[in-house]
Parts: sequence; structure tokens; C-alpha cells
Amino acid sequence: MKLVTIADGTRSGRLHVASQDGARVLPVPGVQTMQDALDHWEASAPVLASTSDRVQTEGAAFDASTALAPFPRAAQWLDGSAFETHALLIQEAWGMPVTGLNDRPLMYQGMSDRFLSPTETALFPSDKDGIDFEGEFGVVLDTVPMGTKAKDAANYVRLIVLINDWSLRAFGPVEMAAGFGWMHCKPATSVAPFAVTPDELGDAWRDARVCLPLTVKRNGEVFGQANGDQMKFGFDQLIEHAAYSREIAAGTILGSGTVANTNYAEVGSSCIAERRAIEQIETGNGITPFLTAGERIEMTAVHPVKGDVFGSLSQRVSVQTP
Amino acid sequence: MKLVTIADGTRSGRLHVASQDGARVLPVPGVQTMQDALDHWEASAPVLASTSDRVQTEGAAFDASTALAPFPRAAQWLDGSAFETHALLIQEAWGMPVTGLNDRPLMYQGMSDRFLSPTETALFPSDKDGIDFEGEFGVVLDTVPMGTKAKDAANYVRLIVLINDWSLRAFGPVEMAAGFGWMHCKPATSVAPFAVTPDELGDAWRDARVCLPLTVKRNGEVFGQANGDQMKFGFDQLIEHAAYSREIAAGTILGSGTVANTNYAEVGSSCIAERRAIEQIETGNGITPFLTAGERIEMTAVHPVKGDVFGSLSQRVSVQTP
Repeated sequence: MKLVTIADGTRSGRLHVASQDGARVLPVPGVQTMQDALDHWEASAPVLASTSDRVQTEGAAFDASTALAPFPRAAQWLDGSAFETHALLIQEAWGMPVTGLNDRPLMYQGMSDRFLSPTETALFPSDKDGIDFEGEFGVVLDTVPMGTKAKDAANYVRLIVLINDWSLRAFGPVEMAAGFGWMHCKPATSVAPFAVTPDELGDAWRDARVCLPLTVKRNGEVFGQANGDQMKFGFDQLIEHAAYSREIAAGTILGSGTVANTNYAEVGSSCIAERRAIEQIETGNGITPFLTAGERIEMTAVHPVKGDVFGSLSQRVSVQTP
Repeated sequence: MKLVTIADGTRSGRLHVASQDGARVLPVPGVQTMQDALDHWEASAPVLASTSDRVQTEGAAFDASTALAPFPRAAQWLDGSAFETHALLIQEAWGMPVTGLNDRPLMYQGMSDRFLSPTETALFPSDKDGIDFEGEFGVVLDTVPMGTKAKDAANYVRLIVLINDWSLRAFGPVEMAAGFGWMHCKPATSVAPFAVTPDELGDAWRDARVCLPLTVKRNGEVFGQANGDQMKFGFDQLIEHAAYSREIAAGTILGSGTVANTNYAEVGSSCIAERRAIEQIETGNGITPFLTAGERIEMTAVHPVKGDVFGSLSQRVSVQTP
């Protein structure tokens, strides 16, 4: 099933089911919001399924400009950093010990009160702050009991999403050194319109990883097409980490971190910081500029059989102070 | 005005107004939840005021065991670390550079999907993780535009709260070194029952600081009574910091960090880690043990004229694995 939240003037929007090709959408009777569906997944699933059966014949045409993020406000947003290639490149370029990822996943608590809509202009304070994107996959969780282990964790994955974790790199070093996590560095995040059940990915959902290429375009040109299959820690391990000292609320979004591959020379990168790190290592200088006002970032993930699974992110960058 | 959320079987509970002495409560007609009140503060304020006028005569007796946290789920939880005494002691004891707080506030993004009720048993994975409390004051904000400056920031403070920011100290050093902020170290937080408008504090709300002693008791004995007036950064400055690259959602809770005073030898500390730091500095060893199952932590803040402003936190510690 593909779920989508359509703007209706409320903060949380109106839950719809989308057709397999994403062309048609139909509101879900009796389940108002995405959070309502997650709060009562067992009760909602049959209603979602029957709506899904009807969407092709009864649905209205999907207008991407009316889509909100699947959760315009989420219970929680946790973001891992599970791709070792990304860690190794950043560590080497930034003069840190090049240790890769150790046995403990990296994860931060992000703001979850506001997710940008897939086609909304992304507003930042200033283009002097190193505006960057991060292409990621993520999972949406049901309630996960505190202490859940990785072997049981994938059972709590209800939906899969495509994410652009906007970042302001100028604050990365100072916030990392302070040890309190990201604040200025991590403004509101964007999520592609369709949140899909794992079965929608077929065998591209395996080992608790999204085994699809994530295509990032900057101003229409491909910037990266790295595959989600190279996570050092699968989402099951990330869930175990997240649930150690807390029950995880239904509707929590858990991200993979920037998708990165060992063959980055061929497939490119999912963020500017990583490309600059590669340039730094190879030439002594990061060359590719960060984003400025007016640039457009698009992300999509195309399945070889099922096509454009999550729908597209397509956002223009804007700044308060040019 | 004093607001309180009473359990009614829903996730967000039912908004009530409490009498000045906290003895009586009355549901607010037409404003179901604390979040509803914050989402439409200007429209809600007159209804809250008229309910407040009636609570003394029409209200029911307040039963502390029925109180939830003011926001059982909040839009956002941001926690500063604004008391320099605390920073200096921890830095010295932990062998870090003793720089105090620099010009940039420390702040982390905490989990906000679940706040513990004021009398609820606090469950943690294990008593080997260094279970600790942190007595703090906090403010509840209206929508704060991105880029708001400190001089305008106090205008967005709608309510003031008393907080116990439970912490697992065993994970402090490793999570701080990782630079991604707190995950295992910061399980669900507790908030005292009454969220009060700033005028309830009289001149104890000044310079955007809560100038009251915060009394912490461990198993009935006073552990600390530090005053909130010694914040190096007031809440106005913390709001400016928080709003740099994001609009702050209405209903966001922003904490002061562990309340600490320069005369800690007289007033004690608001967390065990700070007392252990003092012991470490003075004797070479941290002596005071962290919490184990069965211990009780109480917090309250008594105004010299208005009495027990926020009501009390009183929670027993429990662990999954003794």
C-alpha cells in the first residue's frame, strides 16, 4: 500500500491511499490522519487495504502540489548514520581519526514538529551557512517496547519513506565538538509524498535495508545515485539502538543517514559535504559549492519493476538573508 | 493561571484549570488539550481566564495521582545547559578543559513523544546505567518565528514548568564523544503537574529567569535547593539560539538545564552527577551512588508568598533488569 497525506487546511492533513502508479488518490474513510493509522495499525490496516482496492477506479488524480509530508508533524524523528563509506570519507577529509563506524550506531534526535512538504520552498537563514541536502531512506515504526532486540525489530516497521535531511554544514564542527547534538545544523526535514508498506518494495526490502538507488538531482543534473543496500547497520539494528532506554512511539520516523556507496566514484554522493570530502582528499580542496537561493533539489528512488515508489521531492532553496 | 492535564484515557489527556492553591481543578470548556490551548493561545486565553475565575467555587478536589504531564506528548522538547557552575564542576571533575560556558548556549533536542506523569514510576533498563535526575525549570512557547532575537523572545513564553530530566550517566561520555547528542542517556522526562502563566510567579519571573529555589529530595531528604536565578543565558537567549534555523512550534518545552548555584556547598545540587563531581574534585572520588530500584525522587519549587507553584513531582525508580 502507498499512503499519502493531502493538504486540507489542518496541521496534520488528510490521509489518502495512492494507487500503485501514484496517479490516483482516495481518502481513507474513518482514518483521518497518518498518525491515526499508526496509532491503531491493526484496526486501520483492513480499511487501508479496502481503500487501496478502490483507488484505481474511484480515486481522484494525484496533484503533487497538494501533498504534505506523510507526517507533517511526527511523534519522533531519529536519524542514524549507518553508511560506513560516508563516515570514512568525512573522517579523512576533516582530519578526524579514520575509524569508520564502530560497533555502536550513530544516531541523533531531530526536530519532529515540522516536516516540509515535498514541493515546498525550503527556507534557511542564510546561504553563508553551508546549505546541504542528505538523501536517505527511513522507516516508520509502530510502538516498539523498550529493550527490543534487532532480531524482533523489523516486525515493527510499518512504512518506508524517502527523506531529504536538510543540513547547515557551517555548524557541523562546532555542534559536534559541543557534544550536545545538532540544533542549528539540522533545520526541518523533507519527506517524499508516498509512505509505502514494505511489501511494496518486493525484494528491494531485504535484511532490513532499502536496496534501491536514491537519485539526487541538483538543478536537473544527477548528483548521486547511491544504493541503500550498503548500510553497516540495518534498520533492525538501528531500532534496537533507539529502543534501549525508551519505548518508541508509533509514528516515529527512523532514518538511515546519508546513503553512500564504496563505488562513489561511479555513483556519486547523496550530499554535497561528502562530495567535498572526496575532493578534499583527492585535491586538497573541497570545490563543489554549497547551495544558494534559487537552486532546486530533487530526489526519487526508482524500482526496476515498480517504478517511482515514493514519488519525488522537488524543492527550491530560499534564504531569509541573501 | 495554573493549567493541569488530567488523565481521561486519551493520549493527550484533558485540560483543566487549577485554583491558586492547587487544591481544585475544573475542565476548560471547548479547549480539550494543553496543545489545543497553545495552538490558539489568543482565542483560548479568555476561556482559560473565565474558567480560572470559577475553579475555586465550582472545581473538584485535585487528585495528584490523576495528573499527567502538562503535555503527555509535546511538539518539541529542547533542553539548554545554562548554569555555568554546573558546567565548571563537571568539566573539572571529568578532566575536560575548564572553560565554563562559552558564548554559544548548549542545547540538545530531546524526545518529546512521551513525558512521564508526576507520580508515575520511572522505568529504566538497568540500575547499572548511572540513573540520575536533573532538576530544571522550563518554559512553554507559542509559535516563535525563525530568526527571532532575544530582545523579542520573552514575549513568546506562555507557561512555566518544573522538570525532572532523567538521565543515564553511563552513556554520557560515549554519547558526548560521538557528537550526535543524547540517545541512551536521555530517556523520557517528567514535568510537574501545574504549568503556570508567568504572572503567577510575580517578581520571581524576571530577566527571563525563574528566580525560585528548586527543592530536590532523595528518599525524603533534601538533596539540593539551588535557585534558578543564576542562568548565564536567560530563556530569552535560549529561545534566540533555538530559533536560528527553525520556526519553533507552539507547545515546545524549552528547559534551563540542571539548576546550579555558586554556593553549592550550602544549597546542594540538582543532580547526582554534580554532587559526585564536587566529591571528585574535593576527595578524588565520586562517592554518592546513582539511583537504584525503589528510591524516590521528589521535586518542588516553593514561592515565598504563593507557595507550591508547580505542584510536586514524586516518583519511584524501577528497572527492567535489577
